Amino acid sequence: MSPNGLPSHNPYFQLAGKDIWSLINDTAAAAEKESGEKVVNLGQGFFSYSPPKFAIDAAKAALDVPSNNQYAHTKGKPSLVQALVDTYSPIYGKQLTKDEILVTTGANEGMLSVFTGFIEKGDEVIVFEPFFDQYISNIELPGGKVVYVQLHPPADFSERNVSGDEWTINFDELEKAISPKTKMIVLNSPHNPIGKVFNKEELTKIGELAVKHNFLIISDEVYENLYYKDFTRIALINDEIAKRTFTVGSAGKTFAATGWRIGWVIGNKDLIPYVSLAHTRICFSTPAVMQEATAQALNQATTNGYYEQTRDEYINKYKIFTAIFDELGLPYTIPDGGYFLLVNFKKVKLPTNLEFPDEIKNKPRDFKLAFWLIKEFGVVSIPPSEFFLPENFEVIQDCLRFAVCKGDDMLEEAVVRLRGLKKYID
Amino acid sequence: MSPNGLPSHNPYFQLAGKDIWSLINDTAAAAEKESGEKVVNLGQGFFSYSPPKFAIDAAKAALDVPSNNQYAHTKGKPSLVQALVDTYSPIYGKQLTKDEILVTTGANEGMLSVFTGFIEKGDEVIVFEPFFDQYISNIELPGGKVVYVQLHPPADFSERNVSGDEWTINFDELEKAISPKTKMIVLNSPHNPIGKVFNKEELTKIGELAVKHNFLIISDEVYENLYYKDFTRIALINDEIAKRTFTVGSAGKTFAATGWRIGWVIGNKDLIPYVSLAHTRICFSTPAVMQEATAQALNQATTNGYYEQTRDEYINKYKIFTAIFDELGLPYTIPDGGYFLLVNFKKVKLPTNLEFPDEIKNKPRDFKLAFWLIKEFGVVSIPPSEFFLPENFEVIQDCLRFAVCKGDDMLEEAVVRLRGLKKYID
Repeated sequence: MSPNGLPSHNPYFQLAGKDIWSLINDTAAAAEKESGEKVVNLGQGFFSYSPPKFAIDAAKAALDVPSNNQYAHTKGKPSLVQALVDTYSPIYGKQLTKDEILVTTGANEGMLSVFTGFIEKGDEVIVFEPFFDQYISNIELPGGKVVYVQLHPPADFSERNVSGDEWTINFDELEKAISPKTKMIVLNSPHNPIGKVFNKEELTKIGELAVKHNFLIISDEVYENLYYKDFTRIALINDEIAKRTFTVGSAGKTFAATGWRIGWVIGNKDLIPYVSLAHTRICFSTPAVMQEATAQALNQATTNGYYEQTRDEYINKYKIFTAIFDELGLPYTIPDGGYFLLVNFKKVKLPTNLEFPDEIKNKPRDFKLAFWLIKEFGVVSIPPSEFFLPENFEVIQDCLRFAVCKGDDMLEEAVVRLRGLKKYID
Repeated sequence: MSPNGLPSHNPYFQLAGKDIWSLINDTAAAAEKESGEKVVNLGQGFFSYSPPKFAIDAAKAALDVPSNNQYAHTKGKPSLVQALVDTYSPIYGKQLTKDEILVTTGANEGMLSVFTGFIEKGDEVIVFEPFFDQYISNIELPGGKVVYVQLHPPADFSERNVSGDEWTINFDELEKAISPKTKMIVLNSPHNPIGKVFNKEELTKIGELAVKHNFLIISDEVYENLYYKDFTRIALINDEIAKRTFTVGSAGKTFAATGWRIGWVIGNKDLIPYVSLAHTRICFSTPAVMQEATAQALNQATTNGYYEQTRDEYINKYKIFTAIFDELGLPYTIPDGGYFLLVNFKKVKLPTNLEFPDEIKNKPRDFKLAFWLIKEFGVVSIPPSEFFLPENFEVIQDCLRFAVCKGDDMLEEAVVRLRGLKKYID
């Protein structure tokens, strides 16, 4: 029974204070109000700018067709499914078919549909830490149990820039995490928040374990077009691995349109129907206008150089933004993909007289760093301990995650503001 | 283990042939191909025409604002939440607050979020039969058990037109369905497929039972603007009932935009947070462009006469379409709300030499009627036994459901075609 005498809620859902995104965004809003100056928000991974004109134009055109405003087929609009077939067939080096593809209401709902379609109560799902927070509830809601395996940074990552390859999997630990109940493993490459792109050797070993122990793989590749070294997909390692792999993509990340909520799942045509059944019951169908716009945008992006141009732009964004950390001598993980930068602030001394609100007070140091950065410099970042288990906060609590999917002017302004950190570094 | 040696799927999801919508749509497509003539599709409840120009224009304008293309707040864009406050406060006769409202990715995901936020394994949820098929899985997925209570048609509903009020609840049956495990009851008014608008007496009795036995109410009112007699909302009966009621609305139904996937839940501010937590984990956030467009459309619809005009149009659509059944002497339930018409075909004799495909052969008579109507007359309807339990197919298997949310020209063409039924009626 609830305190007010009404029926009880599902105890899985607890009002445990603000979630990370609300906490940081509200802190930023309060700081803006107090200072009268706009913060530079490099926190949440949404874009500060619009999708490309060809995508917006496609959306406007789509609105003029009556059927685009009505229910799309639950498996996806035929135009979008075809565009995905055409986009991915050259990448996969074989002709994909429509029944290997499912359109979902964002990548998040795509992953929830995979979990819901396959997890039976008590099944275990292996997740690498750091992890995107939605994975956990999306596994637990259908009754799954998360088994964590750490990605280990090098011991001296507070001293020097490290590469994504230096965040390593201990394969003994991974093997130990596997049990007869292991149903699935979750990968994320390029990785949020590290920026690691898993290399072929790592993917091969993971894939071989999945074959040996007969579990499924879900590979969250939403940042697939933003890679700055060789990008390998686990589904392309070999056929035995491919047939048990679901690959998840996102129009939001691909076309700077996180609010469009268009994602997709690519996988074995004998397994996709169960994902589709779950998706039908979760969201029924996916916004049709946005699907049609995504279809047209994908078709155009194949030939108009959009992907290459975007990669070049992001290489430049990182160049602008990492300059300040090079200047300050604050090390970071060199991003191999995605649009985040994980910076180590161990050398930064927080002023001793700071006062923190209650909701920050008992959190690890990265929350305090993030709070102070907003208040003192007007720069918003995300405390990455949110992506870790409490027992591993020690590993990460000196770090902050910055999103560079923002206008160059914002990144340049952040550089100017963060220069003020100098006096807090010995 | 799956037959192909891969890990097993969630056994809740079975590949049990085509769902009703695919079966009917595929039959219609095949008939078009065979005859070379377009069918008149009065099957699925999507609109054959576009949303009103003011809504489309609002969507196009929204696309030009960068932030409208990025993640909206998980509770809904502030502009849409405010528009809903402004729209519903006069209806509720009190000032609603933002924390009583949650925007969801369609009404369907809104209902799933309510069920997920409140149902614990083994909880019972009372659903009236006939029921919309998605309710069932949306209750069962989070572990709920559906308890069915029948809406009873009058015994002679194959003989004469009946009113929605004549589809009655046996309140003894309803009371017997209540147990200590009852967590919730699901209402749908105006009702799909009957077209019944629950009257104040019925709603009061249901609400009083919910208070007495302390369970929640979820009232699916997505057809709220299409009523042709007094429309009463259960949340307005009294405060004790209101505080345990979730009311679900839909931009798709309100603005002829079923593909926009914008819905909302209105309820007690102490309960909405649990729905919100579930929604965050299911869909994270709802398409932002469509939210902004819905906000602007709601603001305009309040003053531009849209609701009144739409009701008048629907009264006319029913007038056009019911004429043929009056002419043929086929009785129907007089629609008090919504956009469906339930017609009784008991008097229609199916030709004895018909051949049915396997997927129809073992289904109740309404599937055969629907199949024959497509093949013989090129008119698509939905067999309503899909909304019933097998043990009650007998009640409904002479009926067909037609959707009138279609252009007047389509309805007029259907009338012409259905005139051919005359020779199959004694």
